[in-house]
Amino acid sequence: MKVTKAQKIGQKVDPQSLGFGKVFSDHMYLQSFKEGSWQEGEIVPYQNLPLDPAAAVYHYAQCLFEGQKAYWGVDQKIRLFRPDFHSNRMEAGAARMCMPFPGQEQMHEALSELVLIDSDWIPRQKGCSLYLRPTLFASEPFLGVRPAKEYIYMIIASPVGAYYAEGFNPVRIWVEPHYSRSAPGGLGSVKAGANYAMSLMASDSAKKRGYSQVLWLDPLDKDRIEEVGTMNVFFRFKDHVATPALNGSILNGATRDCVLHLLKKWNIRSEERVVRVSEIKAAQKQGDLLEVFGTGTAAVISSVGTLGFEDQEMKIGDGSTGELSKKLFNAITSIQYGESEDSFGWTKILR
Amino acid sequence: MKVTKAQKIGQKVDPQSLGFGKVFSDHMYLQSFKEGSWQEGEIVPYQNLPLDPAAAVYHYAQCLFEGQKAYWGVDQKIRLFRPDFHSNRMEAGAARMCMPFPGQEQMHEALSELVLIDSDWIPRQKGCSLYLRPTLFASEPFLGVRPAKEYIYMIIASPVGAYYAEGFNPVRIWVEPHYSRSAPGGLGSVKAGANYAMSLMASDSAKKRGYSQVLWLDPLDKDRIEEVGTMNVFFRFKDHVATPALNGSILNGATRDCVLHLLKKWNIRSEERVVRVSEIKAAQKQGDLLEVFGTGTAAVISSVGTLGFEDQEMKIGDGSTGELSKKLFNAITSIQYGESEDSFGWTKILR
Repeated sequence: MKVTKAQKIGQKVDPQSLGFGKVFSDHMYLQSFKEGSWQEGEIVPYQNLPLDPAAAVYHYAQCLFEGQKAYWGVDQKIRLFRPDFHSNRMEAGAARMCMPFPGQEQMHEALSELVLIDSDWIPRQKGCSLYLRPTLFASEPFLGVRPAKEYIYMIIASPVGAYYAEGFNPVRIWVEPHYSRSAPGGLGSVKAGANYAMSLMASDSAKKRGYSQVLWLDPLDKDRIEEVGTMNVFFRFKDHVATPALNGSILNGATRDCVLHLLKKWNIRSEERVVRVSEIKAAQKQGDLLEVFGTGTAAVISSVGTLGFEDQEMKIGDGSTGELSKKLFNAITSIQYGESEDSFGWTKILR
Repeated sequence: MKVTKAQKIGQKVDPQSLGFGKVFSDHMYLQSFKEGSWQEGEIVPYQNLPLDPAAAVYHYAQCLFEGQKAYWGVDQKIRLFRPDFHSNRMEAGAARMCMPFPGQEQMHEALSELVLIDSDWIPRQKGCSLYLRPTLFASEPFLGVRPAKEYIYMIIASPVGAYYAEGFNPVRIWVEPHYSRSAPGGLGSVKAGANYAMSLMASDSAKKRGYSQVLWLDPLDKDRIEEVGTMNVFFRFKDHVATPALNGSILNGATRDCVLHLLKKWNIRSEERVVRVSEIKAAQKQGDLLEVFGTGTAAVISSVGTLGFEDQEMKIGDGSTGELSKKLFNAITSIQYGESEDSFGWTKILR
């Protein structure tokens, strides 16, 4: 892998004011696909991409990404979290989007190289991390609608602050009755840009109503629950925990997978199945619904305190963060920061 | 509007080998949105865009486009076709995608200026034209999922050849039973890149089966017809013509609108309504289905000769191009090239 070091090293930002996804490290990984094959990948200084205005990504959204993180451990080691899970998902997503993929080995090598060269950019504080964004998109300058013949694969890195700057407070979620995130037979199960473009209007109007995210329902009957915002969603009932099954419209989240493994380890019954709004409403009335939480790489576990419907507001439990949410958050983050043993083999120590 | 002329003028291409969307004119229109307002637009030499790799368009597909054409008339005049229809649709689409829009006046002015400065690029042959691609996309370097705060609005121009290089032959269409183009409550009614990203896998597999495009069905019951490939679709029965109604999942096509106006003028009964595969199959059996055709800016009218299902192939009429398809094609193109009177006010003469 060719490496060109940046001449100028960026000013590090105080972790308190990092936020999410607005500060970027000194380098990036770049690899291009042309004439049927992947060119040699390289680490270059973080820089603008000089793309032709006819590049297919601007017109037909043939783009896909991953979101994963590198952590600075309490033992001063640098860990990647679930790199295999992410590279597996990206390879499957590229196939669904009719795009070539440089290979999982190449992706791991590129991630390691980039994280090590920019290790100064990994914030030291627990809760903070270096967010990594592998991205694959069509760069061929051609306006015909078909899979492009040229692509760019890149990885950029962004130091991010603690998601819960003000503590682990439950969020207010709007149950979206009209807009959809994905169609059956669509792209819902892959991290395609298209799903996020679909989501903007609904999230925006939920925010205007005083909610922080949207609970997505199946577009067919508007009763089956899919995801929450950009996270998977779990429901803790008295005798078990349920999450929507991977039906092709739901993203197979890395944190979702962690939660399912932890529940199994803890002998808590969990079900991947159809979860309906009608079921949730009934369970809440009977006092059978104890916790609702979202799972995702950015927030790890995000406790839901309130679900908002057109005709009512529903408080979950006593409205505060549930004990299972806290326990899961602590279990996952302590593995990420090297505080507890990684019995699942989720982390890869880079140095 | 600031104009910077290109230093080097590109070599014109023989109309026979133009194809679609792969040759571009010397100039482009560029306008950027920053800090809450549109900056001054300008005509610049066609050039690469130096975008930050964190630009939201690469990640979240917040992008929208239009496709329209400028024609060199038999009277040597230059015409834009339905500029108001396109600017209306783009303004509505931008709102659905949570994007600002520079305004319809600005869009018209930019299109006129660009076409006039690159008028040498309008092919003179009938059937050829200068394809115009206004495009709006998110350029803010930020990885949070929300509507971006910076955008680029651009127009590029591509001389295109006759769509039917080998004559007006009917196409073979695959009725897609699994993949979807759009969800109810999704982006199907706007020219969002996301819809095209959704379509790639299905088109690709239809081509592998020997079909040129896909007939899209509603993802809910897989019986209601939506569109054909990147076109609207019409069905001519013995006593009327039907096309799927604009239900929010179907693009409001300019050529679709032209066809509805022409049918009305010709006193042919037309219906915008739900059209079902089951209905089409029954009508074909009874000899009641005379023609099927797609409508779009690229091909104008595209006659469908065969519909392919998993269990059967259905020939439409005698498999050749129908008389109404031919009549509509001739009526629309003769207005575009100034051969017949534009009684609907569809064209705008630029010079």
